[in-house]
Amino acid sequence: MPQLRQNIITLDWVIIATERAKRPDQFGRTVKVEEIIPEFDSSCPFCPGNESTSSVEKYRFEKNGKWSLRTVTNKFPALIEDGDLNSVTSGIFNSMNAIGAHDVVIEHPRHNGTLTDFTHEETVSILNAYLRSYKELKKNKLIQSIVIFRNHGKSAGTSLIHPHSQIVATPIVPNQIKERIASAKKYYSKNHECVFCRNLNDETKSGERIICETSHFTAFIPYAALSPFHIWIFPKRHASSFHEITTDEISDLAFNLKTVLAKLKNGLNNPDYNFTIRSAPTQEKSGKFFHWYLALVPRISVAAGFEMGSGMYVSPAIPEESARYLREIDI
Amino acid sequence: MPQLRQNIITLDWVIIATERAKRPDQFGRTVKVEEIIPEFDSSCPFCPGNESTSSVEKYRFEKNGKWSLRTVTNKFPALIEDGDLNSVTSGIFNSMNAIGAHDVVIEHPRHNGTLTDFTHEETVSILNAYLRSYKELKKNKLIQSIVIFRNHGKSAGTSLIHPHSQIVATPIVPNQIKERIASAKKYYSKNHECVFCRNLNDETKSGERIICETSHFTAFIPYAALSPFHIWIFPKRHASSFHEITTDEISDLAFNLKTVLAKLKNGLNNPDYNFTIRSAPTQEKSGKFFHWYLALVPRISVAAGFEMGSGMYVSPAIPEESARYLREIDI
Repeated sequence: MPQLRQNIITLDWVIIATERAKRPDQFGRTVKVEEIIPEFDSSCPFCPGNESTSSVEKYRFEKNGKWSLRTVTNKFPALIEDGDLNSVTSGIFNSMNAIGAHDVVIEHPRHNGTLTDFTHEETVSILNAYLRSYKELKKNKLIQSIVIFRNHGKSAGTSLIHPHSQIVATPIVPNQIKERIASAKKYYSKNHECVFCRNLNDETKSGERIICETSHFTAFIPYAALSPFHIWIFPKRHASSFHEITTDEISDLAFNLKTVLAKLKNGLNNPDYNFTIRSAPTQEKSGKFFHWYLALVPRISVAAGFEMGSGMYVSPAIPEESARYLREIDI
Repeated sequence: MPQLRQNIITLDWVIIATERAKRPDQFGRTVKVEEIIPEFDSSCPFCPGNESTSSVEKYRFEKNGKWSLRTVTNKFPALIEDGDLNSVTSGIFNSMNAIGAHDVVIEHPRHNGTLTDFTHEETVSILNAYLRSYKELKKNKLIQSIVIFRNHGKSAGTSLIHPHSQIVATPIVPNQIKERIASAKKYYSKNHECVFCRNLNDETKSGERIICETSHFTAFIPYAALSPFHIWIFPKRHASSFHEITTDEISDLAFNLKTVLAKLKNGLNNPDYNFTIRSAPTQEKSGKFFHWYLALVPRISVAAGFEMGSGMYVSPAIPEESARYLREIDI
């Protein structure tokens, strides 16, 4: 019997479609992907030697006199840093200049690596680069929201192979984030607790959907995961924004994230994925009721007309089975 | 300068990314798709002769003693028609049985056709099949929402090639529809008019984003279209639900939709697409402030980490340019 489940945080309902459910090991790519990517590509704007072609450098980490990571502005930015908003309302049409920021973290000098290939120290420095951009951008009072994300693979929207992440800062709070804040606030008013903390406690108690628990983070498949192997990594300590992360927590997150990504790679045959770090709006006080987290979505199913027309999802994966499968995958 | 635009109906903001914008003719498939699909496939459950393999038939239209269209229940339904909801709340975990319906309209006996190949009369009978399912399902008091949709092509989520559409009825109002209703209600309270009617009037007055206007319908690219060539087809007459459509309007919609699809096919080299028909919840009174419509989304861009983490979209297409391009495409 197919089941409807509601996600208490997003309020979205998902249909767990048992009639068309697949076994966890059936979700991986069916064809082994053996792309041969060189360590260096002279035409890549992110490869060493082409620094001048990749737009303005914001900062770099160095090691042995060479850069090990660079943060630059996107050459084709979705939002730009200088200018006025010039907000215009003409009847029903609202617009403003897309002032904000669009940073790119070039994660490694190597052209062909990815997070699962990097050392712990290298992963830590990527997270530190996110943190640095976040803190820097947050100082701009025009900026209302900062989203950190990583697209891995073509079906996840990557246009450049060279390993990189992105940070986008917007001068408005996106509607979806507004709604999540409103619903978290409502939950807090009613229950005097953070809905994310509650969710994490209940998931930990149940244990069924946990993938990887480390000192400061818990990775799990939500009870009402919208798509197969949709994973949330929650910090155990309540904090509303990523920029509150401590040095110890960065190190622990690097370990947790790398573990989960390695399990996905081995268990599902290196799927494309996106991950994103969600925080509370930058200029609002949402300390008590909102909780930052990382959402990781492997691109192993396609949202179609039903999802588009309803905002609901049909998932052919049973969260408990998917989580058990990943828990047991060796890395 | 990239621009932020807000969609007055969904309240979503989109970034019109002028720095990475493409010319309208650059959005089509780059490779001409010349799949040779036979008129008949003996292994297809929807082809004539295999009627017994395609689950329960709800009704059929006949012509010259043979079926010309059949509506059946989905063999692997996301929701099933018989049973009790058995709604369970256990702490933060809400679930219920997925009781509802999942109909499939087998649009044509031919295995290889699609809407742009069908005659006007055939297209009318497809819309009539939607209407028949909608009216039938609406009688069930458990059902709260009905979504009609069509997935065209692999990247749009089609699993079977044989031309078909689907109708899904759910026992809850999806969260996204709830939010749209709430925002339409708010607009109505404040402005004493339907926000959709207002939108249509303003789009018609401006004319810049109109693709095809017929007696009863207007197809346009919304001012804040979330993705390239995202199209809305609005009925001119205010009505909150698809089932209120008249015979004349069905015929006019068939013509309008076929025209728009032919323009997409010729102008963008036969892109995959989804379309969906959105109506007000079935058991609620939302007559004055909600307006049904058809949304058509060609799959020519990939939503990535930013879209996932914010619910906002970055579109590399300028709606006015895209609409002008489609207006001028011959069919």
